[in-house]
Amino acid sequence: MQSIRQEGSYSYLFSRYAPIVATVEPGETIEVFTEDAFSGLVKEETDLPSLLNRPGPNPQVGPIYVNGANPGDTLAVHIHSIEFTRDHGFSQISPAFGGLQATQFTAMLHPPFENQVFKYIVDGDRIYHPRHPHLAFEAAPFMGTIATAPKLEAVSTLTPFAQGGNMDVPDVKAGNTIYLPVAVDGAYFFTGDCHARQGDGELCGTAVEITGKVTLSFDIIKNMRTSWPRIESPTHYMTVGSARPLEDAARIAWCELIVWMEELGWDRMHSYQMLSQVGEMSLGNIVDTNYSMVAKIEKRFADYFLKNAE
Amino acid sequence: MQSIRQEGSYSYLFSRYAPIVATVEPGETIEVFTEDAFSGLVKEETDLPSLLNRPGPNPQVGPIYVNGANPGDTLAVHIHSIEFTRDHGFSQISPAFGGLQATQFTAMLHPPFENQVFKYIVDGDRIYHPRHPHLAFEAAPFMGTIATAPKLEAVSTLTPFAQGGNMDVPDVKAGNTIYLPVAVDGAYFFTGDCHARQGDGELCGTAVEITGKVTLSFDIIKNMRTSWPRIESPTHYMTVGSARPLEDAARIAWCELIVWMEELGWDRMHSYQMLSQVGEMSLGNIVDTNYSMVAKIEKRFADYFLKNAE
Amino acid sequence: MQSIRQEGSYSYLFSRYAPIVATVEPGETIEVFTEDAFSGLVKEETDLPSLLNRPGPNPQVGPIYVNGANPGDTLAVHIHSIEFTRDHGFSQISPAFGGLQATQFTAMLHPPFENQVFKYIVDGDRIYHPRHPHLAFEAAPFMGTIATAPKLEAVSTLTPFAQGGNMDVPDVKAGNTIYLPVAVDGAYFFTGDCHARQGDGELCGTAVEITGKVTLSFDIIKNMRTSWPRIESPTHYMTVGSARPLEDAARIAWCELIVWMEELGWDRMHSYQMLSQVGEMSLGNIVDTNYSMVAKIEKRFADYFLKNAE
Amino acid sequence: MQSIRQEGSYSYLFSRYAPIVATVEPGETIEVFTEDAFSGLVKEETDLPSLLNRPGPNPQVGPIYVNGANPGDTLAVHIHSIEFTRDHGFSQISPAFGGLQATQFTAMLHPPFENQVFKYIVDGDRIYHPRHPHLAFEAAPFMGTIATAPKLEAVSTLTPFAQGGNMDVPDVKAGNTIYLPVAVDGAYFFTGDCHARQGDGELCGTAVEITGKVTLSFDIIKNMRTSWPRIESPTHYMTVGSARPLEDAARIAWCELIVWMEELGWDRMHSYQMLSQVGEMSLGNIVDTNYSMVAKIEKRFADYFLKNAE
Repeated sequence: MQSIRQEGSYSYLFSRYAPIVATVEPGETIEVFTEDAFSGLVKEETDLPSLLNRPGPNPQVGPIYVNGANPGDTLAVHIHSIEFTRDHGFSQISPAFGGLQATQFTAMLHPPFENQVFKYIVDGDRIYHPRHPHLAFEAAPFMGTIATAPKLEAVSTLTPFAQGGNMDVPDVKAGNTIYLPVAVDGAYFFTGDCHARQGDGELCGTAVEITGKVTLSFDIIKNMRTSWPRIESPTHYMTVGSARPLEDAARIAWCELIVWMEELGWDRMHSYQMLSQVGEMSLGNIVDTNYSMVAKIEKRFADYFLKNAE
Repeated sequence: MQSIRQEGSYSYLFSRYAPIVATVEPGETIEVFTEDAFSGLVKEETDLPSLLNRPGPNPQVGPIYVNGANPGDTLAVHIHSIEFTRDHGFSQISPAFGGLQATQFTAMLHPPFENQVFKYIVDGDRIYHPRHPHLAFEAAPFMGTIATAPKLEAVSTLTPFAQGGNMDVPDVKAGNTIYLPVAVDGAYFFTGDCHARQGDGELCGTAVEITGKVTLSFDIIKNMRTSWPRIESPTHYMTVGSARPLEDAARIAWCELIVWMEELGWDRMHSYQMLSQVGEMSLGNIVDTNYSMVAKIEKRFADYFLKNAE
Repeated sequence: MQSIRQEGSYSYLFSRYAPIVATVEPGETIEVFTEDAFSGLVKEETDLPSLLNRPGPNPQVGPIYVNGANPGDTLAVHIHSIEFTRDHGFSQISPAFGGLQATQFTAMLHPPFENQVFKYIVDGDRIYHPRHPHLAFEAAPFMGTIATAPKLEAVSTLTPFAQGGNMDVPDVKAGNTIYLPVAVDGAYFFTGDCHARQGDGELCGTAVEITGKVTLSFDIIKNMRTSWPRIESPTHYMTVGSARPLEDAARIAWCELIVWMEELGWDRMHSYQMLSQVGEMSLGNIVDTNYSMVAKIEKRFADYFLKNAE
Repeated sequence: MQSIRQEGSYSYLFSRYAPIVATVEPGETIEVFTEDAFSGLVKEETDLPSLLNRPGPNPQVGPIYVNGANPGDTLAVHIHSIEFTRDHGFSQISPAFGGLQATQFTAMLHPPFENQVFKYIVDGDRIYHPRHPHLAFEAAPFMGTIATAPKLEAVSTLTPFAQGGNMDVPDVKAGNTIYLPVAVDGAYFFTGDCHARQGDGELCGTAVEITGKVTLSFDIIKNMRTSWPRIESPTHYMTVGSARPLEDAARIAWCELIVWMEELGWDRMHSYQMLSQVGEMSLGNIVDTNYSMVAKIEKRFADYFLKNAE
């Protein structure tokens, strides 16, 4: 199995302009080793991220070239497993980044918060803070970041956008398939930002950040043009919209889910009606440069026409 | 058991100015019969709501006077059961009301949608549309609207606000307790808008609207000032924020949940950190005059200090 | 000339439910004496509004009954003059109300600001703070609040809405005509919240608040249904949208201005094109329960078809 | 005088990665010839932009290397004149791009608008549509786009951001100075998107797009770190915030203007108070990937401490 570790520096951009770190065939299973969101520079609670000289905000492995992927295709990313490669993770309260604080974009006159780091022990399925026992919960690993490269732009790895990116959506986890639009030959796949666990929203701006090994494989759906990321779990179809304000993220996700239902045989107005009764929507993130919302429908509902056409 | 049916016309306002329809003691179990959101005027799919001359948008039973409730208290509403009193419900696509359309407040130059009514059969736990078999799902009853009266204002029953109202949050269901701020003597309780089922967001603007009988009882928590609605289920603490844009609804809900956690013994920054890892957030509604978001934490996490203080 | 002073307590609601304080004929010129936004309780800089026990947030004179006004009409309010009835005004920095601070609706975890009052001397056209000479500017009086009553609701006098209210738009000034929808017989007119001066946005939440005497007269435009407030100056047609987020306020104002241009003979898409090249838009307020935006077009452009039809 | 025409293809990105097209000394006056926003491909009203195969959305001249500019400096761009190099300009109604329509980011279920092109004659100061005489107005030239390159990202030329970009702010005109943050050696300056005229907001998404010649010179303010674009006119200090929702764009602009006032000697809370009484704010654009708002204060107010320190 091909084992991919970033050669040289990590990527702090989703772009077609970086040198390719690996080439993969459709169907091939690979493992990718990812750095944590602090570029590994936080080692103790006294290492305040606001004082560190970091090369960038969110290091990624990539671009990975997927043979046969072309613009207008959709890349299916099957996540087989996510394992931690360290026995501890870090979170923080940031000075001016978080869902309940003034930030660069929701600018206010309040003084920033004091930077505070939390070092969590990760022991199998258990995550806990040794000095604050109330900060304890089960592991729930997922990849905060997963993307293909834009046609033209070089996008900050802090940003979630139409081709994925820093969505911080807990459904990007083992057992699920992520569908991403392909805009350049080879797709130029990136992933990183492994989270040992995160609540909906990544409220304070930082999950339990950890190094990881993600095992995955790709399929290429030829001539299948998608506009926004999609996620398929054993039970659900999901779409992710990333924008501001948050209702625009929601609108994008709902519209893309309706497009998906149309592909599955639904009439547009009937899918609108059906989602009004059975749709689900959870918050992805409310802290990044775009906010993310996840629209969901159970497959047992959405697959009606597939099943009845058989 | 006191059985409350609206005398005279239903209420289309949450206010202290309407005549009291019933007086209830704390601890007393009552049953309340509610009209559907169309004031019962839609009887067939040809009865287009956009053409009906309706007295108002969302008829409520109330105000119900709760003896002993005073400003500065919190009203706990225990929902024991919700039963349908009809074998069918109605939904619709509205001309200019819905989450993926131009509306009065998200004004655009697009022509309105064609008004289209869906009459669903409600047969025990099954809901289905007889001519469109793909529109079929299980019942999941809840009250779209539940409120106490504001101190001064008379608020449209279309509006969710700090004292509840038209939140359209599916967690307002049997088995859960809803906590509402009290602003006037007697609390002036209202409920209505029974939904046979609704997805997160009430996307097209209308759930499966039905008449219902809700059985409930009240407790008064004296001198307990809350700012926004709270919901307690067997497993979760939840708060509901209602505002626009949607991120403001989310911020309100998160902040109120942090206040609740502080009451449970948590430090403010630790609750912010904890919710970042274990908090949950779902969309209530994205169609009403304010949007609603629901923040949630499992009791097993939030009760840490309660359990360890024993 | 009829001189109207509020009998009994001021109104803290825009509603049809309050007793009428005066009845006026169309064309009759009246003068209305208004209280300041602090209900006159702030007399020195040591009178902190956050500590005062105020009856409500923004006292209004009204309702004034305009004979002959009926639902479906539009009320034209001609503002002839606004005079100050005091030689000083007050502003403040509020603890949790303002455009660059966390508020009740943009909830955050920051501590509130310290409440600070500014007492300005108003000397003819000059306004200045005696101890802070850099705080000095010309007077520019207008009415922060002007409204008719809603059909059903009783709306807080803090709120700008479809029938006017607390818009805090500096164009509501002498020489201009304000058009407001009529929803109840007699229109139920309210005004108050005289501002000696205010910048666009009323940024910190408080203008230079003063008592005033506004001289005005009414015309009734029969069977002319408008949806949002309109303002006519000697040179411009203007419309005011009030909503959140701010882009929804802007969309409302633009759409209503396009409706107005259609009434003036314009094709819908041509008005959309024309406003793209000559439209103006300024911020009304970014602090109230709804934000307000003002869309404008010069009459010399908008009147093209009127002039060429002659 | 150095005359700069783009060598090879225009730039469709603001980035440090493109080859430099010219090098300029501080104080040197240059003229830059810009292409129109349609890359010159629209020649008649029948050339529908939605059907054209365009290399990108908004061609720019650049990067221009400014000798001596380093990260942490601010680049002052003096615009001496803007002249049209063609006798006609184009605007359009777009299918799914514009302030009063469903778009990629404000996604809805409405069908797109019909694409419609307007060819305007530009005759000296007069702009008019020959077949639609009501579409006529004076010229008011400005540069829709002006930017320096980001430190890392390659940003679409459709986007306004912290270093300028596609702000579509009519104050970027002859006689004014634009201050932009410098993030890379040489600043990497770009400009383009000349508008013969535009209303506040660029409401339908397209101004009167034209080719132009802009004459300008640069100064470098060493070790002067600014966060967002600033504009100085003979009478005003202005700041531009670009974000979504629109209130976040406004907050950014106000906060940056307060920072500027602090540099001019103002206390933070006094500048907040002062802007509440004398600040001005107009809409830049409500159609691009970020919305833009412009905060303004008259120099006669802001310069109080400068003048009194002399």
